[in-house]
Amino acid sequence: MNIRLIMAYDGGAYHGWQRQKNALAVQEVMEGVIDKIAKRRSEVTGCSRTDAGVHARMYVCNFKGETSVPLEKLPLVLNSLLPEDIRVKSCEKAADNFNSRFDAESKIYEYKILNTPHNDPFLRRYAWHYPIALDVARMREAAAMIRGKRDFTAFMAAGSKAKSAVRNLFELSVEKEDGIITVRAGADGFLYNMVRIITGTLVYAGNKKLTAEDIGRILEKGDRTLAGLTAPPQGLALAEVRYRS
Amino acid sequence: MNIRLIMAYDGGAYHGWQRQKNALAVQEVMEGVIDKIAKRRSEVTGCSRTDAGVHARMYVCNFKGETSVPLEKLPLVLNSLLPEDIRVKSCEKAADNFNSRFDAESKIYEYKILNTPHNDPFLRRYAWHYPIALDVARMREAAAMIRGKRDFTAFMAAGSKAKSAVRNLFELSVEKEDGIITVRAGADGFLYNMVRIITGTLVYAGNKKLTAEDIGRILEKGDRTLAGLTAPPQGLALAEVRYRS
Repeated sequence: MNIRLIMAYDGGAYHGWQRQKNALAVQEVMEGVIDKIAKRRSEVTGCSRTDAGVHARMYVCNFKGETSVPLEKLPLVLNSLLPEDIRVKSCEKAADNFNSRFDAESKIYEYKILNTPHNDPFLRRYAWHYPIALDVARMREAAAMIRGKRDFTAFMAAGSKAKSAVRNLFELSVEKEDGIITVRAGADGFLYNMVRIITGTLVYAGNKKLTAEDIGRILEKGDRTLAGLTAPPQGLALAEVRYRS
Repeated sequence: MNIRLIMAYDGGAYHGWQRQKNALAVQEVMEGVIDKIAKRRSEVTGCSRTDAGVHARMYVCNFKGETSVPLEKLPLVLNSLLPEDIRVKSCEKAADNFNSRFDAESKIYEYKILNTPHNDPFLRRYAWHYPIALDVARMREAAAMIRGKRDFTAFMAAGSKAKSAVRNLFELSVEKEDGIITVRAGADGFLYNMVRIITGTLVYAGNKKLTAEDIGRILEKGDRTLAGLTAPPQGLALAEVRYRS
């Protein structure tokens, strides 16, 4: 049986989703608890690698295996075994050929910037505190330059191995409420560190280090060194994953 | 000079505001950092004792002392010395006779209950996860019985030493949004554990263990053992303190 799980995690304590040597990843924790309830299982496939320290408010994964636990009881049983910073919301039987990663049609990430003079103790783990006032109108102008289907080489971390850097960034919005600026990015796929580099670049637009025209030129040249800094991980969360239905 | 500070803290790591032996309190941390910038100082007086693990989104304290740091720079300087879970938002000169505790006219507390089948990794430190569906209409009926100026002996922790248990609970509301039930309580003063016992009692109304009439009788009898359980601390936050101006 191919089992699909919808989950959420606070990534603060993990080195991202993908299992690795010498650091704890969410995949490893999930595989450990699934081993306690499944007779045998395939690798647990996740919808996205996330960077170390990045959160997921919605995350989809799947594995092939057999369990004697009824599927509707599975979230409760898995949650009783999992640490509190990872929660399974629902489990269901998926089509045999369903793959959380390759079948994802698009993903939405949200990045939160707390733009107030002093940090907030309740947001310190979930936002980037940026104390200098940012010009949201300029950030929106910059977002309009970045949005669209194009080559995002300039917004890809050095050392990335993607075959093509063309992505369709169909959504890139900037909203401000109660001192929190939310950058919402939707695309068919994201390059390594792409949302955090876009956010860093939007911040450079908001503090007047870059104009919208500068950003147009940076995209054209495809030079990572000209774009903004990589925003820190704790402000970023995977918010939604969409599948062909 | 009498200096008033407006602050906020995540209480998860502290045994409440009040300095005590064998456990770290917020007052002790504040006095420690103020000692680094003040030439001499009085005790730092806080607007409220808060229980261990309870948060403050707004907290007011004051001390008498002298410092060479300009008051408008004081939040930045203190925040550079404080741990991240305590932040000073503003500092100002107060009247010589101002006392954060005795001059507080009223306080507003908010208690958050996450009423969904599974917990949320991002709310685990800031809400009480209660997985069984609660009837909000019944909770509101119960709140209407509790609200008002009356003797709250039934909603006071055993061993409390208050001279009188009469308080004016001028606000007690129950709202639900996105699976989160918020109990908002405003009064001229609160007894030890009062908001957490009121919340536990409202939960007993919401899960049909108690009727509004039962609650009327419990208040009349003044018997703590008949009221609901004490809700856990992490769901509670001091939200606002009001002063005569």
